Amino acid sequence: MVIVNGEKCRSIDVSDRGFQYGDGLFETIEVNNGKPVFFDRHWRRLQAGCERLFIPCPPVQLLAREIHTLIEDAARAVLKINITRGSGGRGYGQPEMVHPTRVLSLHPFPDYPDTYRSQGIKARFCQLRLGVNPLLAGLKHMNRLEQVLARREWQDPAIQEGLLLDLHEHVIEGTMSNLFIIRDAVLVTPLLDSSGVAGIIREIILEAAEQFNLTARQQHLSRQDILEADEAFVTNSIIGLWPIKHIAGRDIPVGPHAQKISRWLDAYKQQCDETTAVFR
Amino acid sequence: MVIVNGEKCRSIDVSDRGFQYGDGLFETIEVNNGKPVFFDRHWRRLQAGCERLFIPCPPVQLLAREIHTLIEDAARAVLKINITRGSGGRGYGQPEMVHPTRVLSLHPFPDYPDTYRSQGIKARFCQLRLGVNPLLAGLKHMNRLEQVLARREWQDPAIQEGLLLDLHEHVIEGTMSNLFIIRDAVLVTPLLDSSGVAGIIREIILEAAEQFNLTARQQHLSRQDILEADEAFVTNSIIGLWPIKHIAGRDIPVGPHAQKISRWLDAYKQQCDETTAVFR
Repeated sequence: MVIVNGEKCRSIDVSDRGFQYGDGLFETIEVNNGKPVFFDRHWRRLQAGCERLFIPCPPVQLLAREIHTLIEDAARAVLKINITRGSGGRGYGQPEMVHPTRVLSLHPFPDYPDTYRSQGIKARFCQLRLGVNPLLAGLKHMNRLEQVLARREWQDPAIQEGLLLDLHEHVIEGTMSNLFIIRDAVLVTPLLDSSGVAGIIREIILEAAEQFNLTARQQHLSRQDILEADEAFVTNSIIGLWPIKHIAGRDIPVGPHAQKISRWLDAYKQQCDETTAVFR
Repeated sequence: MVIVNGEKCRSIDVSDRGFQYGDGLFETIEVNNGKPVFFDRHWRRLQAGCERLFIPCPPVQLLAREIHTLIEDAARAVLKINITRGSGGRGYGQPEMVHPTRVLSLHPFPDYPDTYRSQGIKARFCQLRLGVNPLLAGLKHMNRLEQVLARREWQDPAIQEGLLLDLHEHVIEGTMSNLFIIRDAVLVTPLLDSSGVAGIIREIILEAAEQFNLTARQQHLSRQDILEADEAFVTNSIIGLWPIKHIAGRDIPVGPHAQKISRWLDAYKQQCDETTAVFR
């Protein structure tokens, strides 16, 4: 089911700037028992993204009402929210009054095998290098050609994720996930000041690092850093946490930290009181 | 009027990857007396872009037929062609069989004053720095957030174009145009190996430089190079050629070369036999 600006509808006008220019943002949210998981955080990121792109963000009450209609009967699903700058304007120039388009769509929860979480995945390094663009770095915007081209690099179903380096040969993220390594009780995730998407699960894990007696750091990581890590894992709002057990011919142990954080994430999700009041 | 995959229709499915990821390409073409100007060149660029993005390009006969329906009665208009990777696939992963979406739309020809062509325009340097991404450089792809944000930097209607620098402080292009300068009988346009769109008029002028006794070069240009140019101008398929008469507090002469090239372009367009056979 899809809701566009409050109406059940599967289509948008071709003049929408989301289509013409990728002029918008999105959120991908796990739906559990009719509730959007970590909605507060997704909402805050969406709001912050809209501010950075100068798109007026729809009021949370409006979004929440529409989301509720869409997901109330969904046991487990994926909710995608797109917010675009709407139609109008002259070429790249935006209209004087921006009327953002909101698209809410519900998708089946992907059927990833449980072993990805429990035993880890195989990953690869992509050949594509992420462009460097501080202005858009961190944002979950709709300009995603790089990710599309990177995901096209491999068809082998035994490989679940590709890691992306930037033009400076820094490892930044997976095609659809954030990356962490653990090294001598330090939890490191790449700096996202020049490219990459600042994920919600990444944020949660960085905040929670202390309770696992880990020092959290955001810094540049090289290919070699990944290969020599004590543990490595990728995260996103749908997969949760997948340990990397193998990359570039190298086995990486699926160690105790990843497993502990993964279990904690599950529990945190269950207990979490973060769902905004509109969904209580 | 809009034609989507051969049908008169103003909307596309929200699942279209053009909307979801900006996963596509476009062409903006001048329509004159019911004919798409420089269609052969636009078509070749579209085809080359599709190859670089691994999107199967629709056959030219099909496109031409649909374009003909759309523009046959148009005296003067703008034709926009969008080709996307269509719907389907899992996240960024494309479907096994790609069925591209083609969107043809007709727009009124913009009412720019004649003085822009004859007497020149005022331009500015944008603050936004273009990201560096060799993989996408030159392509007229649908990931255009940078141009949207750059165009947002000024509202002053006296300024007609903003010039964009990249992260290395090289001047690359205008928000909607390519850039040329003339210096000691050398015609220079920025190298587009790391960012920028390789425009059709740019290509035509580079090819024609010799007949104006100009040596054509593609090379890095600095802000200072623009300010010290004998002449400077911007080009695109709709505006043709606009001399830059003023930028960053500096007057630049609207010199004989720009005027000569501009007149030649008009004549070349009239005579041009380049329109593909399907439109003859």
